[in-house]
Amino acid sequence: MSCSVYLGCCWVHTSSTFFTRSRSKSLTPPSFKTLSFPIDYSIPPRRRRRISSTASAVLTREDKEKPSSLHHEESDPKPTFDFKAYMVQKANSVNQALDASVPLKEPAKIHDSMRYSLLAGGKRVRPMLCLAACDLVGGNESMAMPAACAVEMIHTMSLIHDDLPCMDNDDLRRGKTTNHIVYGESVAVLAGDALLAFAFEHIAVATPADVHPSRIVRAIGELANVIGGEGLVAGQVLDISSERNSEVGLKELEFIHVHKTAKLLEGSVVLGAILGGGSDGEVERLRRYARDIGLLFQVVDDILDVTKSSQELGKTAGKDLVADKVTYPKLMGVEKSREFAEKLIEEAKEQLVGFDPVKAAPLIALANYIAYRQN
Amino acid sequence: MSCSVYLGCCWVHTSSTFFTRSRSKSLTPPSFKTLSFPIDYSIPPRRRRRISSTASAVLTREDKEKPSSLHHEESDPKPTFDFKAYMVQKANSVNQALDASVPLKEPAKIHDSMRYSLLAGGKRVRPMLCLAACDLVGGNESMAMPAACAVEMIHTMSLIHDDLPCMDNDDLRRGKTTNHIVYGESVAVLAGDALLAFAFEHIAVATPADVHPSRIVRAIGELANVIGGEGLVAGQVLDISSERNSEVGLKELEFIHVHKTAKLLEGSVVLGAILGGGSDGEVERLRRYARDIGLLFQVVDDILDVTKSSQELGKTAGKDLVADKVTYPKLMGVEKSREFAEKLIEEAKEQLVGFDPVKAAPLIALANYIAYRQN
Repeated sequence: MSCSVYLGCCWVHTSSTFFTRSRSKSLTPPSFKTLSFPIDYSIPPRRRRRISSTASAVLTREDKEKPSSLHHEESDPKPTFDFKAYMVQKANSVNQALDASVPLKEPAKIHDSMRYSLLAGGKRVRPMLCLAACDLVGGNESMAMPAACAVEMIHTMSLIHDDLPCMDNDDLRRGKTTNHIVYGESVAVLAGDALLAFAFEHIAVATPADVHPSRIVRAIGELANVIGGEGLVAGQVLDISSERNSEVGLKELEFIHVHKTAKLLEGSVVLGAILGGGSDGEVERLRRYARDIGLLFQVVDDILDVTKSSQELGKTAGKDLVADKVTYPKLMGVEKSREFAEKLIEEAKEQLVGFDPVKAAPLIALANYIAYRQN
Repeated sequence: MSCSVYLGCCWVHTSSTFFTRSRSKSLTPPSFKTLSFPIDYSIPPRRRRRISSTASAVLTREDKEKPSSLHHEESDPKPTFDFKAYMVQKANSVNQALDASVPLKEPAKIHDSMRYSLLAGGKRVRPMLCLAACDLVGGNESMAMPAACAVEMIHTMSLIHDDLPCMDNDDLRRGKTTNHIVYGESVAVLAGDALLAFAFEHIAVATPADVHPSRIVRAIGELANVIGGEGLVAGQVLDISSERNSEVGLKELEFIHVHKTAKLLEGSVVLGAILGGGSDGEVERLRRYARDIGLLFQVVDDILDVTKSSQELGKTAGKDLVADKVTYPKLMGVEKSREFAEKLIEEAKEQLVGFDPVKAAPLIALANYIAYRQN
C-alpha cells in the first residue's frame, strides 16, 4: 500500500510500512514507491502552526493523481532528494555487505541459521540511519558499513530471541517461518548469540584503517550499551512483565519503547556519527534526533491504532484496546498524544538545522515519514 | 579433595578440581590447599624422557607426609612461587571487580539474574590466565582487569545458555540452581545476552587510557571470534548434534573441545597479552600455549575417566564409556592418548621458555596442574 503525503513544502508519495513493530507477527516486504521531494528541514512558524492546528499524525491531503516529482516544477528551486532511489541503493549495498560478512561455512547449520534470519529481507532502516549519519558528519560509506551491518545483526538477533517459545513464541517473522521453527530452539538461541558476538567482531575487524581506533572503541561501547541491561534486554524484560500487569504507567511505557525500539535507532545514528568523525556536539545532536524519532514512531503507531480503520491501516485497528495494552492515547488521550508527537518531530528536525541540507535529507525524510504516515 | 604431585623438580600439593567440564551438573567449590613450588618451566631432556617413559597423566608419587613447601630447602636456590596464594589473591581481585562491574540497578530482575550466575563462585581460571599473560608481557593488572572480567562474563553466559531446557536442560551449576530455574527461561536467555554484550562494553569503557585503543580493538575482535560461529557456539552446535551421532571421529572430537573449551582459554590468554603490550611474536607464542593446555585438559580428563576408580576421581569413573561418548582413549587408545597429552604439555611449556621465569610461574603452574592432576 502507498499514499501521497503533503509535507508542508511538497508532496511525497510514501510506502505504507517503514518501520515494523518488533513483536508483530506478519510483516510486509519493503515497498518503496515514489518518494521524491525537495528538502525542507527547517520548521517555519507557519508550518508549526499548521501541524499544531491539525494536531494529528494525519497531516496529509491525499492526491494520488498529482505527479510525485514536484521537485521538477520551475517554481521550486530547492535541491531535491529522491528518497526511493536512496533507500533502494542503500538497501542493496547493505544486503551485499551482510551477505559477504557471514559466509556459509562449517559448521553449516549455525551459519545457515544466522544467514536465514539476517538475509530474510527487512528495510535496513537501522543501517541506513548509520550510513546517513556518517555521511552527514563528513565520513564516507566504507567507514560505517561494518557498523551498519552490525546494527542489523543486533536487530536480527533480538528478533530471533524475542520469537523464541519462552518469549513471544512467534511462528512468523518478516513473512517467513521463525528461526527456531526451522532450525530448532537450541540452534536459534546459538544463532542469536553468534550474531551478537559477530556484530562486535565485524566492527573491530572490518572497519577501515582511516577510522581512528579510539572511535572504533567508542562505537563498540555505544553499541554494547544499546543491547544489554540498559538497552534492548531491559526493554524486553519490562515488556514481558508488563503483559501481566495492568498498572503500567506512562513512565514504564516510555521505558519499554525507549529501550526496545529507540535505543537501537539511537545507536545506529550515533555509531555512524562517531565513525564518520563527528564532533562530540554533532554526535549528541544526532543522538537527540534519534531518540525523538524512536519515540515518535511508537506514539504515532498508538494514535493510528485508535483513529484509523482496519482498512486504512492495512491491519487490525484497535487491537491495542482489545488487548488492553497500555498506549499513549490510553494514558494521555488522543489529543495530548498528538501534541506529544508534534513536539517530538519538531525536536528531531531541530537537531538537524545547521548541517548540510543535502546530506541531512535522508534523516529528514525518515523523520517526516514517521510523523506523517497513514498506517 | 587434594593430593600431592611430583612435578619432576618439586612436590606440589594440589586441589582436586581445577577446571570443571562445562556441561557437568554438579561442581565443587574451589579448594586451593597447599600449592607452593619452585619454578621449573624448562623441559630438560632427562625430564622429557621420564615423562615419556611413564607416558601417563599420572606422573606422580603420592606423599602426603612430605612438607609441601620444599622451596625452603637450602639445596634448592630457585625462586619459589606460591600458587595457592596467587590464586586466592587473583580470585579475590577478580570477584571484587566483577561485583563492581554489574551493580544491582533497574530493571532489578535482569541485573539480579546476571549477578546470580556471574557471582556464583567458580575458580576464575580464565580471568587469572588473562591477568597472568598481561603481567608476563610487561603489563599491569589494571590494563587487563576489564578484559579478565569480560572473559568470565562470556564463560558465565555460555553456561547460562547451555543449561537452558532446549540445550542441556541442567538444574544445577556451580552447586546452585541454574539461572532459568530461578528467574525463568526468558530472563535466563536475556541475562546471557546482556552479559555477552556487557563483556564488550566493559572492555571498551573500562580499559584504562594507558592501553592504546588499537590494542583494545584487537582484543575485542579476538574475544568476539572466541564466542561466535567460529568459537563457543560452533563447539556447542557440534556437541549437541554429536550426541545423536555415533560416527563422530577424532577430527570432530577435537573440533568440539577446541571450540567449547580451548578457544575461550586461548582468548583469555591472548587478550591479556595484547592489552599488556605484548609483541606479535609473544601473543602468538601465548596463543599456542593456551591451545595446548585447552586440549590437554580434555585429553587428561578422558584418560582419567578410563584409568581411575570412582573413589580416586571423586566422581563416577567410566561414565564416558557407559554413555558411549566419543573420547580420546576410545578413538586412539589409552597409550596413544597419553603420548598426545605428553606432547601437549611439552609444547605448552616450550612456548614459555625465554619469558621472565617469575612472571611465567602462574602459567607454568597451570599447565603442570592440568597434566599431572589425579582426578
